Amino acid sequence: MSRTDSLQSIFDPKSVAVAGAGSAIGQAFVACQLDSGFKGKVYAVSTQGGEVLGLHVYSSIQDIAEPIDLVIACVPARSSPDLIKDCVAKGVKAVSFFTAGFSEVGTEEGRQLEEKVLGLARTGGLRILGPNCVGVYHPRVGLSFSSDFPRESGRAALICQSGGNAIYMVRAAAQRGVRFSKAVSYGNASDIDETELLEYLAQDADTDMVAAYIEGVKDGRRFHRTLKEVSAVKPVVILKCGNTGAGSRAAASHTGSLAGSEQVWDRLLQQSHAIRVYDTDELVDMLVAFSYLRVPQGRRIGVFGAGGGFSVMTTDEYSAAGFVLPEIPERLQDEIRRDIGDFLNTDAGFILGNPLDVTNLYTKEGQYRVLSRLAAWGDLDLLVTQFSVNNSGWPYQDSGYSAWTDFFTDAVIRVHGETAKPVAIIIHAVLTAWDFHRALELRQKCWQAGLPVFRNISSAARAMDRFLLYHERRAAMAGTRSSPSNP
Amino acid sequence: MSRTDSLQSIFDPKSVAVAGAGSAIGQAFVACQLDSGFKGKVYAVSTQGGEVLGLHVYSSIQDIAEPIDLVIACVPARSSPDLIKDCVAKGVKAVSFFTAGFSEVGTEEGRQLEEKVLGLARTGGLRILGPNCVGVYHPRVGLSFSSDFPRESGRAALICQSGGNAIYMVRAAAQRGVRFSKAVSYGNASDIDETELLEYLAQDADTDMVAAYIEGVKDGRRFHRTLKEVSAVKPVVILKCGNTGAGSRAAASHTGSLAGSEQVWDRLLQQSHAIRVYDTDELVDMLVAFSYLRVPQGRRIGVFGAGGGFSVMTTDEYSAAGFVLPEIPERLQDEIRRDIGDFLNTDAGFILGNPLDVTNLYTKEGQYRVLSRLAAWGDLDLLVTQFSVNNSGWPYQDSGYSAWTDFFTDAVIRVHGETAKPVAIIIHAVLTAWDFHRALELRQKCWQAGLPVFRNISSAARAMDRFLLYHERRAAMAGTRSSPSNP
Repeated sequence: MSRTDSLQSIFDPKSVAVAGAGSAIGQAFVACQLDSGFKGKVYAVSTQGGEVLGLHVYSSIQDIAEPIDLVIACVPARSSPDLIKDCVAKGVKAVSFFTAGFSEVGTEEGRQLEEKVLGLARTGGLRILGPNCVGVYHPRVGLSFSSDFPRESGRAALICQSGGNAIYMVRAAAQRGVRFSKAVSYGNASDIDETELLEYLAQDADTDMVAAYIEGVKDGRRFHRTLKEVSAVKPVVILKCGNTGAGSRAAASHTGSLAGSEQVWDRLLQQSHAIRVYDTDELVDMLVAFSYLRVPQGRRIGVFGAGGGFSVMTTDEYSAAGFVLPEIPERLQDEIRRDIGDFLNTDAGFILGNPLDVTNLYTKEGQYRVLSRLAAWGDLDLLVTQFSVNNSGWPYQDSGYSAWTDFFTDAVIRVHGETAKPVAIIIHAVLTAWDFHRALELRQKCWQAGLPVFRNISSAARAMDRFLLYHERRAAMAGTRSSPSNP
Repeated sequence: MSRTDSLQSIFDPKSVAVAGAGSAIGQAFVACQLDSGFKGKVYAVSTQGGEVLGLHVYSSIQDIAEPIDLVIACVPARSSPDLIKDCVAKGVKAVSFFTAGFSEVGTEEGRQLEEKVLGLARTGGLRILGPNCVGVYHPRVGLSFSSDFPRESGRAALICQSGGNAIYMVRAAAQRGVRFSKAVSYGNASDIDETELLEYLAQDADTDMVAAYIEGVKDGRRFHRTLKEVSAVKPVVILKCGNTGAGSRAAASHTGSLAGSEQVWDRLLQQSHAIRVYDTDELVDMLVAFSYLRVPQGRRIGVFGAGGGFSVMTTDEYSAAGFVLPEIPERLQDEIRRDIGDFLNTDAGFILGNPLDVTNLYTKEGQYRVLSRLAAWGDLDLLVTQFSVNNSGWPYQDSGYSAWTDFFTDAVIRVHGETAKPVAIIIHAVLTAWDFHRALELRQKCWQAGLPVFRNISSAARAMDRFLLYHERRAAMAGTRSSPSNP
C-alpha cells in the first residue's frame, strides 16, 4: 500500500470506532460523527460497556463483527499499546489518537511509550495520526472533530499541529464563508506528519489552497523540498510558531516538536514561496482572500468607506502595504458632488477624494451611485470598502444606523455583482452586542454574495498585500504580468 | 485672560447652548447633555423655533436672557459667520463647532470661510474648538458627545482629531474599565489645537495620562517642545496617522491637516519620549495598561493559560516583545504535578513548564492553587494569563466550559488580590454570540477587580512591552532601576 493510499483510511474510512467512548471526550467524538452525518458506520468501544448516545458499547475492538477502517482513540496513554495490539489483530487501518501523555510530557517514560506505540503500529501495518490531536474533519464523508463545523465542503485544506487552534480556525473561517475540503490536526506527528499531509493535499483534487499551523518538523530537508513543490501548484499559507527560545521549549512541551530557529524558518519559508502569516486570524484572512478575492491587475486601489478617521487609517495601512491610491480627477469629483446634491449643504463632513467618504449621503441609491462611479473609473485595479459597525458616526440612533449599514453593504454587494473588478469589504470595530450581531449578519450577507469579508483594517491590508505578492510572483514566473488568473 | 483660562470655558462651562438644535445632530447634542447630567443649564437655539426634547427653542443666541459660556454649533457652514457675530454680541466665551465644510473641503471658498470665522472669533475674544469636531466629554460636569459614555470620571485624557475615532476609543476603553478625566475632539484645529490641549492637560490635576490621535499639526516645533515637556511629567500615547503620501492627502481632506512624513514623525516622537501606537485598539491597550497594570520590577514573566497552541503563541509573542520566560524548577513542577493529581491520568494534555497549561485540571480550587504557586515563585516579575473564550478546548459543552472560564477567571482575580506582583489577563478569540457575551461579562468582572484586561495575545504583548519601556526609561533617568513606581 502506498503512503498516499494509507492516508486514505484516515480521510475516507468506511467505518469508525471510538475507543474510550465512556469518557466525556470519547462521547463527544461519538456525538460528533453522528451530528456530522458520517456516511459509514460508527461504533463505540469501552471497557465500561453499556450504551453511548443510543449505540451499543463493545468492550473491545475485536468484538465488532464488521471491518473497522479508523479508530479514534481516547483511552488513557498507558492503555494505548494494548489498544494498538487489538487494532492490529482486528485489521484496523489507522488510529487517530486524541490521547496525550507521550513524548510531549518531556519524560523518558513518555518518549518510550510513544515509540512503543509507533513500533507496534508499524509492525502491524497500521497508520497513526497524533498522538495528542483532534484528528480529521472531512465534510464530504461526514467525519469531524466539532459538531458545529459546516457540513458543506469547500476548496480550502487546513493542516494544524494544535487541536485547539484547528477548531478555532475552522470556526473563524466558516463564519466568513470559507469551506474546507479537509482539515486535520496531527499533534505529536509520531507517524503521519505535516510533510506527508502536504504531499497528500498537493495531489488532492478537492483542494485548491493549503494552510498549515506548524510548531516543528522532524525532517527539515524533506519538509522544505515538499513545501517548494506544493507551493508551485497551490498557494500554501504557513503559520510557524515556537521559533523563539522559550517558544521552542513550549512547542516541545505541547507537541514534542523541534521548532528550529526564526532565522532558519524565515529563509526556508521564503525560498519555498510559502505565504507566511503570524497568527491564527491572519491565516484565516488568507483563506478568505484565496476563496473570494478576484485577482487584481495591479495595486491601484479606491478606498470607499465611512468615517474620516477610519478613512485616513485605511489609506495609511494600504499605502504601507504597497498599494497606491490615485487621486480622483476633477470630472469624477464633480459627478460625485452632483450625486450628493443637497446632502452637501448640511452640517456634516464629506471626503471627496480617494479615500472617498460619503457617509452623510443618507440614501441607499446614493451610496450605490457613488460607489458604482468609482468602480467604473478606469484608473483603479480594485476597490476596498470599509465601515465601523459601531455607530461612532453617532447621531443616527441604532435604527437609523442599522438602515445606513444596509445602504452601504447593499451598495457594495450590488457593485461587486456588476463590476469585473475585485472588491473587498472590511466590517470592523465591534464593541456592543448590537454591533456583534449586526456584524455577523452583514458579513454573512456579504460572503453569501461572493464578497471577501475582513474584520480589521490593518489585517485586511496585510492579507491583500500577501495575496497580490503571490499572484505577482506567479505572473512574473509565467513570463507575463498581464493576466494572472485565480488559482 | 490666559490661554489656559480661556480653555476653561470649553471644559467647564456653566451654561451651554446648542445652535442648530432643530437638525438631527443638533437634537442629539441637546439629548447628550441632558442624558449626561450636565450640571449647568442647557439651551436650544434654532431659527425653526418650537420645542426640542421639552426645551423651549430660542430663535437666536441673543434672545437668551442668562449668560452663555459655550455654544455647540450645528448650523450649516455658510451660517457660521452670523452665528459667531451673535455669540460675540452675547458675550459667549467659546464655540465648539460640529459643522464641517471648511478648509478640509480643499476649496479656496472653504479655506476663506474658516479664516473668516476665526477672524471674527479672535476679534470678539471667542475661542473656537473645531470646526468639524464632536467637542468635549467631561464627565465631572456632565458634558458629553455621546449619551452612552460613563458618567464616572477617571484619570485618562484623550485628544482626538477625528470625532468618530474619539467616540470609538472612549467606548472601547470604557468597556475595559478605563475612565476619563476629559476627552476632546478638535477637528480642523483652526484655533484650539493639539498643542494647546496638551499644555492644558499637562497641568490638569485630574489627568494622569494623555492619549492623542493626530492627523497633522500646524506648528511642528511648538508641538515637539510641548510633547517633550508633557512626556516628562505624564505618559503620552500618540497615534499619528496620515503619514503616507495618500494618507496625508486623506488627512488634508478630513481635517485640513498637514500630516508630515513618516520619517520626521518617527524621529519627533522618539525624541519626545512619547509612546507610539499604530491603531485605535493599541491606543486603548495603553490606557488599560497605565490605568491598571502594576509596574513590574523586570521582564521575567510566567505564562499561565489554556490551550497548547495558544500557549505556544503567547510565548512567541512575549519573547519577541523582549520578555523572558524562566524555566520552572523541578521542585515547583513536582508540586504542580501533585496539585493536578488524578487529572494527570486522563487522556488529555498538560504543559508543565513555562508556559503552564493546566486547562484539564477541571476544578476551581485546582486552577487557583497552581496559579498561586506560580505567583509565589521568586524568579518571576509578572504573570500573564490567557484563555480563548471560544470553546476550542471543545468536549466540555457550553455549560461546562462556562464553569471552566469562571474557575480560571476567579483564580486569576484571587491571585491578583493576594500577590503584590503585576498580573494581566487576556480574554481572546471571540467568535460566537455566546463567546461575545461571556467575554464582555468576564472582562468586566476582571477590571472591576482591578485586573488589566486585554483582548488579543499579540497586542497585549506589544502594550506591555511599551509600558515596560516607559518605566525602564524613567527608572534609568532617575538613576536607579530598582523601584519604578506607578505614574
